[in-house]
Amino acid sequence: MTDKSNKALVLLSGGLDSSVVLSICKLEGYQIYAISFDYGQRHAVELKFAKFQASFFKCISHEIFKIDFYGGSALTDNIDVPSNTNVELIPNNIPVTYVPSRNIVFLSFAAGYAECFDIDNIFIGVNSIDYSGYPDCRKTFIDDFENLINKATKKGIEGNKFKIFTPLINLSKKEIIKLGNKNGVDFSMTSSCYNPGLKKSCGFCDSCLLRKRGFEEAKLIDPLGN
Amino acid sequence: MTDKSNKALVLLSGGLDSSVVLSICKLEGYQIYAISFDYGQRHAVELKFAKFQASFFKCISHEIFKIDFYGGSALTDNIDVPSNTNVELIPNNIPVTYVPSRNIVFLSFAAGYAECFDIDNIFIGVNSIDYSGYPDCRKTFIDDFENLINKATKKGIEGNKFKIFTPLINLSKKEIIKLGNKNGVDFSMTSSCYNPGLKKSCGFCDSCLLRKRGFEEAKLIDPLGN
Repeated sequence: MTDKSNKALVLLSGGLDSSVVLSICKLEGYQIYAISFDYGQRHAVELKFAKFQASFFKCISHEIFKIDFYGGSALTDNIDVPSNTNVELIPNNIPVTYVPSRNIVFLSFAAGYAECFDIDNIFIGVNSIDYSGYPDCRKTFIDDFENLINKATKKGIEGNKFKIFTPLINLSKKEIIKLGNKNGVDFSMTSSCYNPGLKKSCGFCDSCLLRKRGFEEAKLIDPLGN
Repeated sequence: MTDKSNKALVLLSGGLDSSVVLSICKLEGYQIYAISFDYGQRHAVELKFAKFQASFFKCISHEIFKIDFYGGSALTDNIDVPSNTNVELIPNNIPVTYVPSRNIVFLSFAAGYAECFDIDNIFIGVNSIDYSGYPDCRKTFIDDFENLINKATKKGIEGNKFKIFTPLINLSKKEIIKLGNKNGVDFSMTSSCYNPGLKKSCGFCDSCLLRKRGFEEAKLIDPLGN
């Protein structure tokens, strides 16, 4: 249990994807250090779900870091989140729900935290298939970031190298949901909706539409009742 | 005064180097947004100096971000800071004063903040000549980071590209001090010492030794009295 290579840091938002990542790490036998961010997101209810998931999957620790400079995004400010009626209509450009440099900041925190606790393995639930077009969710960004931290940290240079794992990168939402279901994820305690303050989901933001289609294709019932 | 290209974000520690960077930006006519970090550094007195310098050089704003996960470094924990008697004896390996992933986290915050406020220009006072051997102070790291944020942010892809400036990168401490002196930097309000709680400097840590030699070579008196 003190095997260093057995430690994993998981970036846990409390959304569906990162909860499935957590379940994967648990089943692979990692000692899990989860971290979340309170960045002024309007859908801050996800942090409640993050706490639940971290406890459910028996993480060694779960830290929530507060970051207070974000503005200019529909996920933090009072800009309307676009509604769509059809998942096929989600545009290809970077949407207004993009949060400036979010995964760069989150992964930098992850690297710093992992270096402090000598954790080699960093897990993040980015996905290139059913996603909203954010540039910091692409595999090429993750690979560049991994290279960067291995060249610019004491751990990367003198110790064990960091490895950033993206187990969902090539999965469809359907496949992610089926995997989570198999792994025992309680989907009623995962948040996906970009709109704030709702008990369930709005059903019309990009994230809700992707989730809805995923459950339909997986032939499963979404307990959030989309 | 609303020219976007005229805005600069400066990473301001309150140390000698970043204060000189601030003076350079001021003389070049930038509207300056300064950011500092409270990361549990034992030499937290530098934040007091950062506030002074930000005010002195009339920054548009000065934000201090709190980061609370750092441990495992002589700059944050109760590990002895090494004493040297001769600046030539500073070892080449990464020292115990290295703070895990510090500039990666700081520059990520800078990128996020700059993207929120649409600031193209980021200034950081890293230096490859008279420095303590930290891997995240090298020009190659800065270049890699600039490429990364330009590929992984909405601003970098769709807007004006980020430019990270390192005006001190190839200067000796002597040259940095002479430049700061010419630019009107009040060196009595800059901190360099890695040891905490001292009114002046310990005179024996790497940083004090580099500063001392710099002032001697510049033929100037250090108001901190080294």
